[in-house]
Amino acid sequence: MGERAIVYREKNYITKAIADGTAVNIVSMVFGNMGDDCATGVVFTRNPGDGTKQIYGEYLVNAQGEDVVAGVRTGKQVNKLKKEMPDSYKQLAKTCEKLEKYFKEPQDIEFTIEKGKFYLLQTRNAKMNAVSMTKTSVDMVKEKLIDKNRALTRLQAEHLEQLLHKTLDQKAIKNYTQIVKGIDASPGAASGIAIFDVKKATAMGENGVKVILIREETKPEDVPAFFESAGILTSRGGKTSHAAVVARGMGKPCIVGCSDMKINYDKKTATANGKTINEGDAITIDGSSGNVYFGEIPTIEPKITQDFKTILDWAQKSKKIGIRANADTPEAAILARQYGAQGIGLCRTERMFNGRDRIGLFVDMIMAKTIQDRKKVLKKLGQLQKSDFIEILKTMEGYTVTIRLLDPPLHEFLPNPEELAEKIHKLEKNKKTKELEATKIIFNRARELAEINPMMGHRGVRVGVTYPEIYEMQIRAVFEAAAFLAKKKVKAHPQIMIPQVSSIAELNHIKKIYDDIKEEIEKKYKMKITINFGTMIEVVRAALTADELTETAEFFSFGTNDLTQATFSFSREDAESKFLPEYLKKDLLERNPFQSIDVNGVGSLIELGITKGRGVKPNLEIGICGEHGGDPSSIKFCHGANISYVSASPHRIPIAIVAAAQAAIELSKTKSKQ
Amino acid sequence: MGERAIVYREKNYITKAIADGTAVNIVSMVFGNMGDDCATGVVFTRNPGDGTKQIYGEYLVNAQGEDVVAGVRTGKQVNKLKKEMPDSYKQLAKTCEKLEKYFKEPQDIEFTIEKGKFYLLQTRNAKMNAVSMTKTSVDMVKEKLIDKNRALTRLQAEHLEQLLHKTLDQKAIKNYTQIVKGIDASPGAASGIAIFDVKKATAMGENGVKVILIREETKPEDVPAFFESAGILTSRGGKTSHAAVVARGMGKPCIVGCSDMKINYDKKTATANGKTINEGDAITIDGSSGNVYFGEIPTIEPKITQDFKTILDWAQKSKKIGIRANADTPEAAILARQYGAQGIGLCRTERMFNGRDRIGLFVDMIMAKTIQDRKKVLKKLGQLQKSDFIEILKTMEGYTVTIRLLDPPLHEFLPNPEELAEKIHKLEKNKKTKELEATKIIFNRARELAEINPMMGHRGVRVGVTYPEIYEMQIRAVFEAAAFLAKKKVKAHPQIMIPQVSSIAELNHIKKIYDDIKEEIEKKYKMKITINFGTMIEVVRAALTADELTETAEFFSFGTNDLTQATFSFSREDAESKFLPEYLKKDLLERNPFQSIDVNGVGSLIELGITKGRGVKPNLEIGICGEHGGDPSSIKFCHGANISYVSASPHRIPIAIVAAAQAAIELSKTKSKQ
Repeated sequence: MGERAIVYREKNYITKAIADGTAVNIVSMVFGNMGDDCATGVVFTRNPGDGTKQIYGEYLVNAQGEDVVAGVRTGKQVNKLKKEMPDSYKQLAKTCEKLEKYFKEPQDIEFTIEKGKFYLLQTRNAKMNAVSMTKTSVDMVKEKLIDKNRALTRLQAEHLEQLLHKTLDQKAIKNYTQIVKGIDASPGAASGIAIFDVKKATAMGENGVKVILIREETKPEDVPAFFESAGILTSRGGKTSHAAVVARGMGKPCIVGCSDMKINYDKKTATANGKTINEGDAITIDGSSGNVYFGEIPTIEPKITQDFKTILDWAQKSKKIGIRANADTPEAAILARQYGAQGIGLCRTERMFNGRDRIGLFVDMIMAKTIQDRKKVLKKLGQLQKSDFIEILKTMEGYTVTIRLLDPPLHEFLPNPEELAEKIHKLEKNKKTKELEATKIIFNRARELAEINPMMGHRGVRVGVTYPEIYEMQIRAVFEAAAFLAKKKVKAHPQIMIPQVSSIAELNHIKKIYDDIKEEIEKKYKMKITINFGTMIEVVRAALTADELTETAEFFSFGTNDLTQATFSFSREDAESKFLPEYLKKDLLERNPFQSIDVNGVGSLIELGITKGRGVKPNLEIGICGEHGGDPSSIKFCHGANISYVSASPHRIPIAIVAAAQAAIELSKTKSKQ
Repeated sequence: MGERAIVYREKNYITKAIADGTAVNIVSMVFGNMGDDCATGVVFTRNPGDGTKQIYGEYLVNAQGEDVVAGVRTGKQVNKLKKEMPDSYKQLAKTCEKLEKYFKEPQDIEFTIEKGKFYLLQTRNAKMNAVSMTKTSVDMVKEKLIDKNRALTRLQAEHLEQLLHKTLDQKAIKNYTQIVKGIDASPGAASGIAIFDVKKATAMGENGVKVILIREETKPEDVPAFFESAGILTSRGGKTSHAAVVARGMGKPCIVGCSDMKINYDKKTATANGKTINEGDAITIDGSSGNVYFGEIPTIEPKITQDFKTILDWAQKSKKIGIRANADTPEAAILARQYGAQGIGLCRTERMFNGRDRIGLFVDMIMAKTIQDRKKVLKKLGQLQKSDFIEILKTMEGYTVTIRLLDPPLHEFLPNPEELAEKIHKLEKNKKTKELEATKIIFNRARELAEINPMMGHRGVRVGVTYPEIYEMQIRAVFEAAAFLAKKKVKAHPQIMIPQVSSIAELNHIKKIYDDIKEEIEKKYKMKITINFGTMIEVVRAALTADELTETAEFFSFGTNDLTQATFSFSREDAESKFLPEYLKKDLLERNPFQSIDVNGVGSLIELGITKGRGVKPNLEIGICGEHGGDPSSIKFCHGANISYVSASPHRIPIAIVAAAQAAIELSKTKSKQ
C-alpha cells in the first residue's frame, strides 16, 4: 500500500524510495552476523500494542535479519541495546525520531549494526491495533507532529470497531476447532451453549445462561430471544436480513448466511463440514469474521479510552454531515446519545410489538375477523405504543426523533406456514383436536397473508391503506405522547415518516388521516402540536417522482437497503447467501452494495431524488437510514451529495462520526487542489 | 364523453349544443302522442350491428319517446315509416345525411312527428360493435366523408379485441349462474369441464375433451396442459403472472387472481360465494370480463373481415414505430406474421424446456450433482434447442428474431416444495420407500434452490454466471442454427439478449462466453456469422447505467413488466390479487401499471435509459417487450419516447398496429397545433 523504504547508510546517502518495502543497499550488503560487534533488530518507534511513545522491539547480536524475524533465536528487548551498544542505540533513537518526523507515522524499522556501524535497512508504517492507533493519534497532535485532520484521517473503520466490541484473543484461536464460516453480520465475539429453540433460548437467557441461538432464519416474534442470547447464528439470510439488522441494532454478535450449515430441528443438531453441533454444546461465534468454533474462546473486552473520546470530539467539530441513530428502544437511545448521536433518524415501531407482552395482542389484531374486533385490540396497543413513545422521546429530549409507521408485511408476525403445516400434521397424529383447530385457523390466515415475494408485496403504506385503523392508532399514539410531554414541559421533537411510499397519491392518503388526528388532538388538549410529516424514499418510483412528493413531505429519508434491493433486483435476503460472494470473487461487483452504497447505480438514483426534491424545496431535510448509514465509504458519498444526516445503529455511531469527519477533510482537500 | 345534441326544430332554428346529450326544445314541447298523425322513433343512421349504410330503428305512432325506449309497446321497423308517413320519412333521411356530414360519425337519433311536422329531438354518436365500427370506418372513407386518419382514430382497442376473440352471447348470459369474478388476464370466452389436475387436463384435452384447467397457480411444467385446455382459471396471480403471460401468448382465455375462490385439491372442488364447482362440472370462463359461470354459454366466433384487413393496411402505412411479436414457437411466429408483425422482439427460450419430452431432461440438468453430469444433459438439450431455433428462424425468414437466454429461477422448473412436502407425508404414511427417497432428493434440491423473494433472486444472467455451461449451451445452439440455415441459404436474422442484467460487468462476463463460441463456430463452418448481442433493460440499475452498457450492448430491450415491478416495489404476482384493485378504487393509481406504462414513474426511468443509451450510440435500436407492448396508451408513450419498436403477443399485434398509427396521427396533430 505504498509503503516507502529508505536505505539510509550514512547521513550523506539517502537513496530513493522503493514502493514494496524491500531493503536495498545500493552501496553493498551489510552483515549483522560477522561477530559480536554486529547485531540486527526490528523495532517500532512506538508500542504497537498500546501506543506508548517508546522504542519497542528486539535485536540479536551476531545475526541477520531473517533470524530475528523467523524467531529462530529469541531476541533481546531493544532497551538492552542501550547498555550493550550505547552509540548504536543513540543512532537508532535519532533515526526513529527523524523517520517519524519525515513520514508523520510511527515506523516499523529493521536495522543492522556491522562492526559497530549503524545501518538502517528498511522502514515502513507500523501496523497498529485500535488502542495504539487512537493513542498515537492524540499524542502526535499534542507533539505537533501532525494536525487534527491528519489524526482523523489515519484511522480506519476496522480500528474503531475493535474498540467497541469484544474480540477473540487471536493467540488463543489456534487451540480451538473452527466448525464453519458464515457472513459477518454484527461484530463482536460471544460464547454460549448452542440452543435451537427460540422459547428455550429466551428462558435460559433469563436464567442467566449464556446461549447462542441457532436458527435457519428469524422473525419479529423471535426478538425477545435476541435480548436474552449472547449471540445469534443463522444458516440463511444476509447482512440486511432480519437477524442481522436486529442484532446490529442491539450490538449483539451475529453470523448469518451460514449456508454450509444444515440444521435439523427435530434432532436439534447443526452439521457443517463433517462436524456436528448438538444442542447444549459450547460454541463461540465471532461476528467480526463470520467464524464459528467449538468451545469457549477467551475474549478481549472493548476499551473506550479517553484518547478515543478525544478523537470523537475532534471529529464532531470537523464533520459537516449530521449523525443520528437508528434506535427503537430507550436503552438504544441512551447508548446513541452517549456515542454522540444528534437525534434518532429511524425509530421503527414494529419492534414495539415484539415484546412478549405485546406479540400476542398484535397477533390478535391480525387474526381479527371484523374491523370492530381489530379496533378493540388496536385501542389496547395504542396505549402501549403511547407509553413507548413517551419513553423514547424523553430519552432524546431536545433532539428530533423520526418515527416510522408500521413497515413489515403482516404475515411476518405470524408463525411460518411451513412450520404450522408440520405442527398440524403432528397434532393430527396425536389427535389433539382443540389445539389442532386453533392452529388451523392461524395457518389459514398465515397462508392468506403469505405472499410469493413478501418484501415487495403488501407492506408499509400499502398496509396503511388497506388497514387504515392501524396507522390511525400509531399516529394518534405519537400525538398523545407529544401532548403528554408538552404538558410536562419536556422538549420532545417527534416526526412521522411513512414507509414504502411510491406516489404522492399514497402519501396524501395517509396525510388525510394525520390531519384529522392532529385536529382532534389539538382540540382535545387545547394546544398546537408540531409533528413534521415526511416520507421514506425507498421505492424507486419515489426517487423518480421526488418533486411531486415535496407537495406534502416535509422531509425525506432514503431507505438505502430497500432502494439497493429494488435497483439491483437483488433480494437482499437471498443474494448474500446465494450468489453475491461469487459475484464479488469474479469482480462482477466492486463491493457488496448492501454494505457500501453503489455509487454508479443506487447513488445516481439518490442524487436524482435529492435534485428533484430540493429543486422544489431547497431547504428540504434529507437523511438516509439504511445500514449504509454506518459505512464509511457510504458516508463519504452522502457528504458529497449534500445529504443532511445519516442514521446508523448506536454501535456504529462513533465510526460514522469519524467517517463523516474524514469525508469533510478529504473533500476539502480535493477542492483546494482544484 | 362530449356527445353533442342539437335540437333542430326547423331549418331556421339551430340551438346550441349541450354536452350531456339531453334534448332541449327551446321553443316549446313537441308531442308525438296527439293522434295518429303523430309518431316518435329512435334510429341509427347505419346498422349498429354490422355497419350497413341503412337507416335502422323503430317508431311508434301516437307515442312519446319514453314509450319507444322503454319498449312498452313494440315499435315498427322504421322502413315502414316510408309508406306510412312518406314526407316525414324524407325529412328523416335528409336529417340523417346532414347530421352524419356534420358530426362525421354515424348517429343515434330520436325524433317526433307532431301533426305531420318532423322534429329532431336528440342526436348523439352511435355506439357500435367491432364489426360495424370497422365497416363504417372503411365505408366513410370510400364516401369521402372522413379521411383515413380519422377512420383509424375512431377505433378503440376494445373494438379490435372483440374481432379477435370468441365472445359470450350477451343476450344468453342472464340464463346462467355467475359463480365468481377474477382478473381478466387473457381475452376470449371458453367452456369446458372443470379439471383440477394438470396431467388429467392434458390427457383429456388430447382426447378431444374441452377442459377448463383450475389451479391455484401454474408453473412452466404445466404448459402442455395450456395447449390442451380450452381455458385456464387460477385463484392466485395477476395479469403478468405465469398463467396470464402464457395464456395471452397462446391467445387462450384465462382468468387469474380469483381470490374469492378456494380450491381443495383433495376433494377436487372449488368454492366461491357459497357455490361449489366439482370436478367434471361444465363451466364457462370469460377472459375478457373475468367472470366465471356454471354451464356452457353460447359464444360468438371472432370475425376477421376484409374491412378489418383494410384498416390494418392503412395503419401499417400511418404508423412510425415498429411492431414485433413475443413468440416462442413456430406456430406463434406464423400467426404473428399473419397479423403483420415485423420480427420477433422476444423469443423466450425457457418454454422450449417445457415440452413433455423436454421437462424431464431439464429437471435432470437441475438435479445434476457435478458439472460433468450437467454438461452431459446440456449436450442433449443443446441439440433440441438448436432444432427449435432452426424452426422459428425459418418461419421468420428475413426478419429479426431476438432470442432471450434462460430467465426464470431454476427452482421454477421443479415441483413446489410445499406440494412435495405433502407428497412426502403421504408416501411415508403408505410406506412407499423407493418413491419416498426419490421425492426427498427432489424436495431437498427444491428447498435448496427455493428463495424468499424468487423473482428477485437467483435468475437470469445471475444463473448464467453461476452455471455458465447453461448459457454456453444456448449460445452455441443459436450459432449452430444460424450456420445451418446459412448453408441452406435461408435469410435468418437471430440476435441474442441477456436477461436481468444490472451492470456492464455482468454483460461483459457473458460476452466473453459469446465471443469464444462465435470464434469456435465461425472457424468450424468457415463462415462469418452475424448475431447481434444485446441486453434487457429490466433492472432499474441497467436503466440508470445505460450509458455504460452501450460499451457492449448492440441493442436494448426494455422488460417493462419487471421494470414496473422493481420501480413500484410491487410484486406483480401479489399486487394484483391483494391490493391493486383497492388502489384503483381509491384513486391511488390512475391505471394498472402492469397494463399501461406508468408515465410519471416507470416512463421517466425508460426515458432516462433511452437518453443515456443514445447519448453514446445515437442509432441504438431500442424496443420494449413487456405486456405493455400490446397496450394502446403504452404504445403512445413509446412513440413519443422514440422507441424503435414494441413487441406484443401475436393476438395483440393488430391492436398494436392500430394503436401505433393512432399515436403517430395524434402526435402529429399536436405538433401542427404548436
